[in-house]
Amino acid sequence: MNRQELVQLIRDRRSYLCIGLDTDIHKIPKHLLSHPDPMFAFNKAIIDATKDLCVAYKINTAFYECQGIRGWESLQRTVEYIPKEIFTIADAKRGDIGNTSSYYAKTFYETYGFDSVTVAPYMGHDSVQPFLGFPEKWAIVLGLTSNVGSADFQMQPLKDEKLYEKVIRTCASWGSPDNMMFVVGATQADVVADIRKIVPDHFFLVPGVGAQGGSLKDISEKGMNKEAGLLVNASRAVIYAGNDERFADDAHAAALQLQKEMAGYL
Amino acid sequence: MNRQELVQLIRDRRSYLCIGLDTDIHKIPKHLLSHPDPMFAFNKAIIDATKDLCVAYKINTAFYECQGIRGWESLQRTVEYIPKEIFTIADAKRGDIGNTSSYYAKTFYETYGFDSVTVAPYMGHDSVQPFLGFPEKWAIVLGLTSNVGSADFQMQPLKDEKLYEKVIRTCASWGSPDNMMFVVGATQADVVADIRKIVPDHFFLVPGVGAQGGSLKDISEKGMNKEAGLLVNASRAVIYAGNDERFADDAHAAALQLQKEMAGYL
Repeated sequence: MNRQELVQLIRDRRSYLCIGLDTDIHKIPKHLLSHPDPMFAFNKAIIDATKDLCVAYKINTAFYECQGIRGWESLQRTVEYIPKEIFTIADAKRGDIGNTSSYYAKTFYETYGFDSVTVAPYMGHDSVQPFLGFPEKWAIVLGLTSNVGSADFQMQPLKDEKLYEKVIRTCASWGSPDNMMFVVGATQADVVADIRKIVPDHFFLVPGVGAQGGSLKDISEKGMNKEAGLLVNASRAVIYAGNDERFADDAHAAALQLQKEMAGYL
Repeated sequence: MNRQELVQLIRDRRSYLCIGLDTDIHKIPKHLLSHPDPMFAFNKAIIDATKDLCVAYKINTAFYECQGIRGWESLQRTVEYIPKEIFTIADAKRGDIGNTSSYYAKTFYETYGFDSVTVAPYMGHDSVQPFLGFPEKWAIVLGLTSNVGSADFQMQPLKDEKLYEKVIRTCASWGSPDNMMFVVGATQADVVADIRKIVPDHFFLVPGVGAQGGSLKDISEKGMNKEAGLLVNASRAVIYAGNDERFADDAHAAALQLQKEMAGYL
């Protein structure tokens, strides 16, 4: 999916909601466990209930990988089930030497057909660039993450700026707003306005609203640009809004509340 | 595997060779392609030919992931086939918020049974610590990597030290030499002696010998400690030493040459 299509989708739906399918076999409603593929059954119901309210689904690969091969089967079924007009994110946080990164890019863009993959920047340009050479595919580079550990290294001061600023500024020079986004945690709203100055045109993927404590209002006011420029993710707050046979209705209600709030900010 | 066992293995075999199973379906000898699982058939032959010369096998997950589910099947068969007395490394470079990192730890330590997994440190302590709570399992944290992109961020100066020094010093305080190692690229031999001063007792996993240009002699002289403290990886230089029906014999010869050189440094 290209940027123009993504921006149009956001305008049409009056939403920049990304729903995170952090599907934990131990947390899904018990009645699904008799299904041959419980994780997919859960995701299918969540997608059916929310696909008109969001513009992206983010699949956190760890939750699938830990189930071994059957987890990857659930992941594959899920990404194939997501309607083609919705942006898909493999939240995999990959990154390695160039030769290896190119295999990760192929994995998520081609083998599974995602629109994008999250990328860890620590190894530098030759670890990031292999994710940039695919038309209408996106590398979503970790900038400033939502967790407390972001203080350990990302916040460290270099000569003129903090590490995360250096990372965002430098990575932006390797790609463009058409093939790169940045992860900017919602718990870091106080610095989002400054990051927006560094990369005025890039999309931000914003985790951390809901369970992690970030404010949708703050991040929207401080991070939005003229094209919206935000994909705000909610995972647990939507997919585990309920935990019984009405879980999909509860997820719909939670997503609808977020979408309505977003419509107000757009 | 615990540290004492690993050190004993190195002494017994007079080797600190790690063989990287970077198995590329497009590079393995053509006669294997008729096998129902060509990647595993290749790995099985390499393991049979080299298992008495090395102390570790490192599986670069990207090469398997890009093949989709059948790649994970090849990976699983391979790790199950590796003799139990040999140290196993999932070179997966994972790292995410704590909740997610704990799923990655389970994936590689429990679902697939690896002894260790490589971990990207950018997200800080809550992304690394979930990899440390498993008895006789190891997080191998990226310190200073072998690729040219290591200059982009890892080499950046902070107030008193470079970022990679801060990363190594800080991460070392979260674990111990019994549950943490560091990736230190062989192409960085000039600074390995300095890193050894920061973490005198930790093992280093050293990629970059061979195809990437690092010198085994340099890294051994500058990085070794009293327990050896090194796992030096060779991937392409061993597994693709030959490319016909004698490929396993060629891999044996390449591994033997490295082992003999290592015996001289021990």
